[in-house]
Amino acid sequence: METIVLDDVLERIREALERGDLQTAAAIIENYRPADQADLFSELDEEHQVALLSEIAPEDSADILEELDDEQVADLVAELSDEEVARIMEEMEPDEAADLLGDVSPERAEALLSRLEDPDEVRPLLLHPDETAGGLMTSEFLVLRRRMTAAEAIEAIRRWKPESETIYYLFVVDRFGRLVGVVNLRQLIVADPHALIQDIMDPDVIAVRAGTDQEEVARIMTRYDLLALPVVDANNILLGVITIDDIIDVIEEEATEDIQRYGGAEPLERSYLDTSVVTIWRKRVGWLLLLFITATLTGSVMLLFKQELESVALLSVFIPLLIGTGGNTGSQTTATIIRSLAVGDIEPRQALAVWWHEFRVAILLGLAMAAAGFIRAITWDAGIDLALVVSLSILALIIWATTVGALLPLLAERIGIDPAMVSGPLMSTLVDATGLLIYLSIARLILMTG
Amino acid sequence: METIVLDDVLERIREALERGDLQTAAAIIENYRPADQADLFSELDEEHQVALLSEIAPEDSADILEELDDEQVADLVAELSDEEVARIMEEMEPDEAADLLGDVSPERAEALLSRLEDPDEVRPLLLHPDETAGGLMTSEFLVLRRRMTAAEAIEAIRRWKPESETIYYLFVVDRFGRLVGVVNLRQLIVADPHALIQDIMDPDVIAVRAGTDQEEVARIMTRYDLLALPVVDANNILLGVITIDDIIDVIEEEATEDIQRYGGAEPLERSYLDTSVVTIWRKRVGWLLLLFITATLTGSVMLLFKQELESVALLSVFIPLLIGTGGNTGSQTTATIIRSLAVGDIEPRQALAVWWHEFRVAILLGLAMAAAGFIRAITWDAGIDLALVVSLSILALIIWATTVGALLPLLAERIGIDPAMVSGPLMSTLVDATGLLIYLSIARLILMTG
Repeated sequence: METIVLDDVLERIREALERGDLQTAAAIIENYRPADQADLFSELDEEHQVALLSEIAPEDSADILEELDDEQVADLVAELSDEEVARIMEEMEPDEAADLLGDVSPERAEALLSRLEDPDEVRPLLLHPDETAGGLMTSEFLVLRRRMTAAEAIEAIRRWKPESETIYYLFVVDRFGRLVGVVNLRQLIVADPHALIQDIMDPDVIAVRAGTDQEEVARIMTRYDLLALPVVDANNILLGVITIDDIIDVIEEEATEDIQRYGGAEPLERSYLDTSVVTIWRKRVGWLLLLFITATLTGSVMLLFKQELESVALLSVFIPLLIGTGGNTGSQTTATIIRSLAVGDIEPRQALAVWWHEFRVAILLGLAMAAAGFIRAITWDAGIDLALVVSLSILALIIWATTVGALLPLLAERIGIDPAMVSGPLMSTLVDATGLLIYLSIARLILMTG
Repeated sequence: METIVLDDVLERIREALERGDLQTAAAIIENYRPADQADLFSELDEEHQVALLSEIAPEDSADILEELDDEQVADLVAELSDEEVARIMEEMEPDEAADLLGDVSPERAEALLSRLEDPDEVRPLLLHPDETAGGLMTSEFLVLRRRMTAAEAIEAIRRWKPESETIYYLFVVDRFGRLVGVVNLRQLIVADPHALIQDIMDPDVIAVRAGTDQEEVARIMTRYDLLALPVVDANNILLGVITIDDIIDVIEEEATEDIQRYGGAEPLERSYLDTSVVTIWRKRVGWLLLLFITATLTGSVMLLFKQELESVALLSVFIPLLIGTGGNTGSQTTATIIRSLAVGDIEPRQALAVWWHEFRVAILLGLAMAAAGFIRAITWDAGIDLALVVSLSILALIIWATTVGALLPLLAERIGIDPAMVSGPLMSTLVDATGLLIYLSIARLILMTG
């Protein structure tokens, strides 16, 4: 329903733009919430977008740019004058403004900074990589002092007139700017107006360093149900605050990256249909080629067992079935382990416990699948010997696939690689070649010596 | 580092428990934050857990139970007396208490409810399924009236002394309890104390019905950066409020389910190492068997082309390589499409646009991989004809795999199945059999007629 309504609105905006009536088009967009504004906006042609950005109120333009993908923003900013960009940046949260500056040339960034009213609010944020706590934090926050009263703190908030969500947690610093406690707005309101902040505040405040990875930040905020997390430097001096809305985006982004990696492709940086065909190709072809080269091992294994394959014609009929089952079992295991690592359920040092868990699952799965394989072989007139080869191979393959599927992501995490790089396709390819070796070796042992 | 510290603490708790010193053990646990308390607690034996729950302060016990998995809570509650459970439930958020009651027998739930001081806070929440807005909401919230002043509203909050995060958004109702607006605490504080709520509030408030799926709730709160979302009935009467901390859990849970489904297994309900081997087996064996049966199609296809396979011995050597490449391409596509559907980037009605996007990617990928296949075939002394068969098959297979990989999840979403059910293993298995058919048909056409 929602989309139908937006479609109608889009129609009205386009009509206004075709008449050259920028004001009406801008007025329609300004009526909506930021996320909807951005949706409407990104459906328009780039020339219309550029024209509209100058017409829409700067605070709405800022909201729209905050919602768009980084690449789209960079494209638009390239078309606008410094003056117009600076006007919009004034209305952005400092962390979003810093993100924008990170996507333009250093010279242009300097030019834009010099036009801002308060460049020092944004400049320190430029030092931190995007995917760290420093890159996520905002420098727009209010600090309290220990000897203020609750009433004075509330008065300070009232004077500050904050726009943002950072207000719900207020951080307390000493005279050197070092973080010494946290108070939330709820506590301030409920407290006796004359109570001192140092008596209300929680001195045991969780903070992270500016260099902390965004995934770790997300884990801490989720674990302790925090709406805001302070960022400090090595001397515990408060540098900024990360709010929960930024973290939700991180959680979604990381899950998207994990599932795309796990599917065997490098993650896309913008939404699917906005990503060019060539970019998608580049994100996939590397892995495909690498896996292709690995997969040629399967051919080498088959050439190695040429004699067996030629003398027992039915042997090759079971190959796709067997390696498929091995690959599927490995994928199941890997998906579970990757996700358990991502949410912090297991750690690399628990490798032995994980393997023992998987090993017992594998025995149970192997027995069930071996039985199914035996029946299938018999009904294909394979003879008892071949049926035995097939079911023994399935059992061995499943134990092997779960072992590889469980230990590889743990090893990746241990050596500092994203465990989701151990994708389903990588698992299948590894298990294909080694599984074939297991199957044909068992066949040689049972069929050839008999 | 954090885990090392917790290990030491755990040692001290265990020592205290072995001496039978419950008080010291409880005191150590009470020192930590809820998430850490729950971690420490779940490392203990069940008998110690039961004994400790009666010793730990009820508000800490409530925090611990809120952090544990539903199944663990159900096990513990079964061991405790009604009196003890009720004492802990008094300290829980109403929505968490309702979740607990949902996991015990209806008779026990009734018995526990009757012991609560205010059963009517919990009872209405029992009506809603866990995975809906109604199941996520809390009934503990404060409502404002339009004719209150800002100062009166703050005074009401002060008297209410809320424990929870629900306080940051306050909802305004008319005399029938119908939702008419929202004010956030920041606006209340900044406002002139004499200003009327109706002049400060935003009348355009986003709300959901109690039956809305939790995934949709998460999408709305993420999209509009909301910290709280009101839940209403068909008459727009305010029933409860969903807070952002619950939604973060939903987002993580849904991503976990997606990646496990996509890996070809049913999602686990509790953390990996806490799930029994038999349960993990049950979550995997169904899909494995189903895929095994589907995969036997590959054997049937091979039997169909027995003659070709026997006359050109090298033909079978390429089979694992080719179907592997098809499966990998399909997995890449499916992962991207599933995730784009999950975050709302694409919709089923865009199937044609998606397919056209994938088709062009497939042509580029297919050309690159066909070239690689040609080279590999020549270096295996396959002859020009077979090399041609291999590279043509790769091109056709990749186009086919991306088509299936893109359209199947879209179809699933259209008919109301979770698109993540179109797993990597399902894709591989489907592409294995059909890919084999494509390869052997092309071989028959080129090699046999030659």
